[in-house]
Amino acid sequence: MIIKNEHEDISESVNVVREYPPHPHIIRRKSTRAFSEKPVEPEKLRSILEAARWAPSSSNMQPWRFIVATKEQPENYERLLGLVVEQNKIWAAKAPVLILTAAKLTHDAGERPNKFALHDVGLASANMTFQATSLGLAVHQMGGFNAEEARTVLNIPKDFEPVAMIALGYGDTADFLPQYLRERELAPRARKNLSELAFDGVWENPWSLAQDRTINIKTITTNN
Amino acid sequence: MIIKNEHEDISESVNVVREYPPHPHIIRRKSTRAFSEKPVEPEKLRSILEAARWAPSSSNMQPWRFIVATKEQPENYERLLGLVVEQNKIWAAKAPVLILTAAKLTHDAGERPNKFALHDVGLASANMTFQATSLGLAVHQMGGFNAEEARTVLNIPKDFEPVAMIALGYGDTADFLPQYLRERELAPRARKNLSELAFDGVWENPWSLAQDRTINIKTITTNN
Repeated sequence: MIIKNEHEDISESVNVVREYPPHPHIIRRKSTRAFSEKPVEPEKLRSILEAARWAPSSSNMQPWRFIVATKEQPENYERLLGLVVEQNKIWAAKAPVLILTAAKLTHDAGERPNKFALHDVGLASANMTFQATSLGLAVHQMGGFNAEEARTVLNIPKDFEPVAMIALGYGDTADFLPQYLRERELAPRARKNLSELAFDGVWENPWSLAQDRTINIKTITTNN
Repeated sequence: MIIKNEHEDISESVNVVREYPPHPHIIRRKSTRAFSEKPVEPEKLRSILEAARWAPSSSNMQPWRFIVATKEQPENYERLLGLVVEQNKIWAAKAPVLILTAAKLTHDAGERPNKFALHDVGLASANMTFQATSLGLAVHQMGGFNAEEARTVLNIPKDFEPVAMIALGYGDTADFLPQYLRERELAPRARKNLSELAFDGVWENPWSLAQDRTINIKTITTNN
């Protein structure tokens, strides 16, 4: 029944953005749990970090930092993986690259707090994700890691905050995942309707362009 | 002299990412101050918000909200513009669309804080920016607006936080800007070196792939 409704949605909804659909690298992006063990080429990894570097930030403070570990450096990799919660390790341990993002909480000059620090790390991480997707790679960001332990184990100074652990690699078939993760991996992606998210001029005044029949992700992508 | 050094940098640095340069929509993106008054097509605007909608978020909470105003709705537009600091109004007032982003600070169920709220709004705003760039539009995010007044004037509830004001529109020549803004508009974009931003395995252990001669934005883009 759910599936039937979904397909009904598709036929009606795709019109809405047919003319200018969201970019394929946005629509195809998925927080996969099905990583291949294939290593990430250093040039691609470099390019992904370079993309992060060119994100915008408040007063161009660039509050983002990245601790990178690949399986070619087992000690570094195991140190980052050791911070990940057990239920995420099941799939994250296959990813060939782990990256911890951190935010500088203060202005470069003085101790004044930068209230955009986490927001701007988000901007940079989205750039990384976009670049990775454009190179055929997949990214899965996790809040599920021990941030306090990260601070100690990785020597993160007090004016920085560990933000997210990113698993990066090529995608693989979901066949190797345990049943309960395979189901999640293959489930359609879901989002709130735009009418819940966007408003005309003031709060909760429904956005005139946000019709409820918004695009269904199934219409323009495959499962990966 | 600065220009000379810059050009020296170019010839040496472009090798580093020649094979996989950052995506043009990341490199060409710029927080322009030179907006055209040309309206943004509703289909494009819809597509930009749709791109935000498909960003990833912690536990898929989608903490992002958007208050949108175009010049076709002058009362809404003036209300948002009225929140912008004077020095930004000079250029922002030409942009045909303003969007205020807001973050839901708590989990959907209960009052528990969502510590990723601002970060995830950043992810969504980067998706918007990327989509806008892919459609030939420019985005300029601002912290320079009165957040407390925004809360009152726009009826933003206490569990949400106004985050950033976004000016959106087509780019224009910098000729119409006052001299001091034109200079900023035409200045090369600058970023920290990757060696300051990325580390191998632990804090401040220089990333093996982050050579100091990183890509210079001038090499693969024009001034817009």
